[in-house]
Amino acid sequence: MVKNRRTATCGQLDASWAGKKVTLNGWVHRNRDHGGIHFLNLRDRYGMTQVVIDEDADEKLKSDAESLKIEYVIAVEGEVRKRPDSMVNKDMSTGEIEVKAEKITILNSCETLPFMIDEESEANENLRLRYRYLDLRSAGMQKRIKLRTDLAFAVREFFDSRDFMEIETPTLIKSTPEGARDFLVPSRLHEGKFFALPQSPQLYKQILMVSGFDRYFQIARCYRDEDARGDRQLEFTQIDVEMSFVSADDVFEMTEAMYQHIFRKLMNIELPATFERISYHDAMNTYGSDKPDLRFDLKFRDFAPYVDGGDFSVFKSVLEDGKGAVKALVVPGAAEAYSRKKITELEDTAKKYGAKGLAWMKVTAEGLDGGISKFYQNTADRIKEGLGAKEGDLILLMGAPWKTACTSLGAVRSRLGKDLNLIDESQYRFCWIVDFPLFDYNEEEECWEPAHHMFSMPQDRFIDTMEENPGDVLGDLYDLVLNGYELASGSIRVHDPVLQQRIFNIVGFPKELAEERFGFLLESFRYGAPPHGGIASGLDRLVMIMAGRETIRDVIPFPKNNMGISPMDDCPAHVDEEQVSDLHLQIVYKESPDTQAAE
Amino acid sequence: MVKNRRTATCGQLDASWAGKKVTLNGWVHRNRDHGGIHFLNLRDRYGMTQVVIDEDADEKLKSDAESLKIEYVIAVEGEVRKRPDSMVNKDMSTGEIEVKAEKITILNSCETLPFMIDEESEANENLRLRYRYLDLRSAGMQKRIKLRTDLAFAVREFFDSRDFMEIETPTLIKSTPEGARDFLVPSRLHEGKFFALPQSPQLYKQILMVSGFDRYFQIARCYRDEDARGDRQLEFTQIDVEMSFVSADDVFEMTEAMYQHIFRKLMNIELPATFERISYHDAMNTYGSDKPDLRFDLKFRDFAPYVDGGDFSVFKSVLEDGKGAVKALVVPGAAEAYSRKKITELEDTAKKYGAKGLAWMKVTAEGLDGGISKFYQNTADRIKEGLGAKEGDLILLMGAPWKTACTSLGAVRSRLGKDLNLIDESQYRFCWIVDFPLFDYNEEEECWEPAHHMFSMPQDRFIDTMEENPGDVLGDLYDLVLNGYELASGSIRVHDPVLQQRIFNIVGFPKELAEERFGFLLESFRYGAPPHGGIASGLDRLVMIMAGRETIRDVIPFPKNNMGISPMDDCPAHVDEEQVSDLHLQIVYKESPDTQAAE
Repeated sequence: MVKNRRTATCGQLDASWAGKKVTLNGWVHRNRDHGGIHFLNLRDRYGMTQVVIDEDADEKLKSDAESLKIEYVIAVEGEVRKRPDSMVNKDMSTGEIEVKAEKITILNSCETLPFMIDEESEANENLRLRYRYLDLRSAGMQKRIKLRTDLAFAVREFFDSRDFMEIETPTLIKSTPEGARDFLVPSRLHEGKFFALPQSPQLYKQILMVSGFDRYFQIARCYRDEDARGDRQLEFTQIDVEMSFVSADDVFEMTEAMYQHIFRKLMNIELPATFERISYHDAMNTYGSDKPDLRFDLKFRDFAPYVDGGDFSVFKSVLEDGKGAVKALVVPGAAEAYSRKKITELEDTAKKYGAKGLAWMKVTAEGLDGGISKFYQNTADRIKEGLGAKEGDLILLMGAPWKTACTSLGAVRSRLGKDLNLIDESQYRFCWIVDFPLFDYNEEEECWEPAHHMFSMPQDRFIDTMEENPGDVLGDLYDLVLNGYELASGSIRVHDPVLQQRIFNIVGFPKELAEERFGFLLESFRYGAPPHGGIASGLDRLVMIMAGRETIRDVIPFPKNNMGISPMDDCPAHVDEEQVSDLHLQIVYKESPDTQAAE
Repeated sequence: MVKNRRTATCGQLDASWAGKKVTLNGWVHRNRDHGGIHFLNLRDRYGMTQVVIDEDADEKLKSDAESLKIEYVIAVEGEVRKRPDSMVNKDMSTGEIEVKAEKITILNSCETLPFMIDEESEANENLRLRYRYLDLRSAGMQKRIKLRTDLAFAVREFFDSRDFMEIETPTLIKSTPEGARDFLVPSRLHEGKFFALPQSPQLYKQILMVSGFDRYFQIARCYRDEDARGDRQLEFTQIDVEMSFVSADDVFEMTEAMYQHIFRKLMNIELPATFERISYHDAMNTYGSDKPDLRFDLKFRDFAPYVDGGDFSVFKSVLEDGKGAVKALVVPGAAEAYSRKKITELEDTAKKYGAKGLAWMKVTAEGLDGGISKFYQNTADRIKEGLGAKEGDLILLMGAPWKTACTSLGAVRSRLGKDLNLIDESQYRFCWIVDFPLFDYNEEEECWEPAHHMFSMPQDRFIDTMEENPGDVLGDLYDLVLNGYELASGSIRVHDPVLQQRIFNIVGFPKELAEERFGFLLESFRYGAPPHGGIASGLDRLVMIMAGRETIRDVIPFPKNNMGISPMDDCPAHVDEEQVSDLHLQIVYKESPDTQAAE
């Protein structure tokens, strides 16, 4: 029996415990004297309890209480009593009571903290990561890690109810560089050979379908040796799913049901029975993004019909070769607030995405004013009516090759959503993006490339005539978007080796290379592979969105920082020479080792 | 909507479906003609259904049926009907019915199989691993992977009910070589530096306790770069648990409850309310092993009391220095069956464990006979009575330094358990091994070493006087043994930096090295670390034992073979030169690269 073992948690006691003896274990959250009475807030994972050392307590107890510093770990034996009415704290689950201490035992002490334990740690991120075991004590991190834990269990409950099997796939696998770079793991037993860490369980989950497991999922660790830009981690977690004998509709239904279960259970939110489906083309044309944030409107309109009626030659030449687009974005009521200067800031955003400029006009009672309005005076009314623009609105216009026009104006749209506070943060707007093209044409190299990857099924109606016009072929590919984030991605897979080879041929992927990299998967297709498809969701990102945070680092217990380093345990790190030579390797420094060692 | 989509699984149909139309999807398991009627066994994950193409079926259907080869993936549309009584198969869940086929669609074909899909694949292991996607279709592998899946879910259910949080720990961590060798992961972003893959989440789960998460578990992937001897995998899975403010008893209670839940749910077996606890010393003295198989008796007896009464000098000298032991193992009724030759085989086993020989005597009506009995004629009756040996018994005797005597005779005991069929394979006998010594004395180097690792708490009563006689100090360490396998291992941890340093001092572990390797954990102990402890179970081994198999490879979907290679996806493998140089590395071949490439 451990001495001083708790008989209740710090979140458990309420008025029904009044009069009972208890022992609590926890951390000293706050410790203050108040007119001769000593108050301690004792904290554990489950909550907070007020502990009181009365004025009439014996000297030893008083002195023990006084010796306690913040974050000491203690055991308190005492009696539960109701607080005086004036002191009841409705915000605490234990707010009706307090514990009158009879004995305090220090279980462990704590040195001076680098930052206080609070709702969120007030410290720069590197310090929080360095002392992650302190940062994780903060209420905010505790809540988020609990959300993550609860999410994973809710996912597993859901799939268990649907007879999906969670199956572990290997993580010491063959390097098949695809997408990002593989992390390599040198083999000691086999000189000069390497394992890789998987970027995803993709190939293995397909093998599990060929193996007849029918319905699979896994909460899987994935690894990408990418540059530390954006909000990425070298290792991250996916909810990975695959099904046999299904169409994309089946995958959608299963996925929607999974998210409904998650949001209902964890957030008490009812999601729609089905999620909106938008074609890639429409998403780009309407929102300028293949991951549109649907929480606010601001849809694009096509300005091409109005170009000929005006004199703006820039737009006319954009449309000449049939590959350009002129898009308009009507921003309601923004004419007054948006000075030339502010519009230039929007233009800067557009330029980052390849646009040469951002044109504009303002809508007045009389017609159109400012910017390029002089080129459209004659057709002002037609334009206003056609775009649904009203007095006081700002019209932004982008003319460029189609994709550039969409994405650069899309970036402007995203920025406006934030700048104008158009986003209702309480909303969770899901949509499927479908009808992706299977092939992209590479103008420079004059050849076709896979738009996503080479293993997705073409949609049924395109299969027979794929080679005739690859650019028209739409794939059975789909992305799931939530609030402007790409949350999940998947496809129905090619399971027929003949069809697979046709796709390899279209993109000019050499057969030998396919053999070398994915040979075992392709071979398995010759042994009775069922039709199959699936999807993978980013668990870290999902938790981040649900927790209302902006970086996945806030929902991962021990993430790497934005330099790909973990400050707490200081890795990556140098290792013993012997460890390296045992792996039949030698380090080749660009600079001298001494410079390295000094780092 | 996918064409030919199933409306039932191959395991679902029964008499209640008679008369209904169904579509099934599955694999052609068997395909035979029987007097003009064509029978197909159609198989999927859920079961098997008999599909019949009647004699009066149209020619196209008959010819489609005939074209089907083993493991073709097909869709069958037809009508469910009851089988004739004489053909009802009580061993199949669908055995009351069959499906009269109306239409057959081939979804995918299958080339000639390297081995048949059956209960177990009749093929050598390397072929099974090479074509693992076929081997996994076998009923045996399907059952075992399902057992594994169900086990993982049962574990999670259990811990969820107890408010344990499943928290993911990082797998790109700092190399801290302990136990086995670390796998290394070269960093591309940080020249000359490496991550390691974790041998276990040990350090991080302790950090999670310091972070206040109170109750943690994880079904965690672990990695050890070990030689491929015995039944080991380079990557394997642990059920990893840690708790705060607990004693060993709390860990035992939680663990016993977890196993009770697992065995009740998955095997319908009620385990005892608590598991037997045996001290390390008693386990060695009684069974010759710190992981005794309790499914059969054959306990050791101490023969030391009888040594002086006899003339066998070997035994007398063994006992002289006070460090030796003479153990007796009475094997009931084995005197007749065990010829000198067979006893020599047992002796060979003993010698593998360091014994110089194995002595013996047989028990007759008159007394003791054979072997070394001539040295004990005078005390024969006393010996028989003292050892509880009866006429017809064989007495095996081992005299050696204590540990050697125990382990070598223990190996003989294990062998006898198998040879004499003493083991009831339906039993699951758990026991805790407790009271391990904390320190071992290294005679050669004349210093103390940690017997397990340096982070376990000494038992309470030894703490104050640890340095006086380290050899006497017992640790708060424990192993869980099941049927002779070490299933789980754990301890209460040291959480006090002062005590930790005392342990480092006793074993002479340099402070700087501790800082370098475990610095962050030791530092965290200075910031309010709670008392904590835990345990980790080998999930692969547990599933193996429950499935009655002899190698963990049979319960892992894609294991490596005993050379540490995966034949299916051919890894580890050579990678592009550029991948290696991007990691600031160069391969140093012992032989010329050409020899390597030829492999």
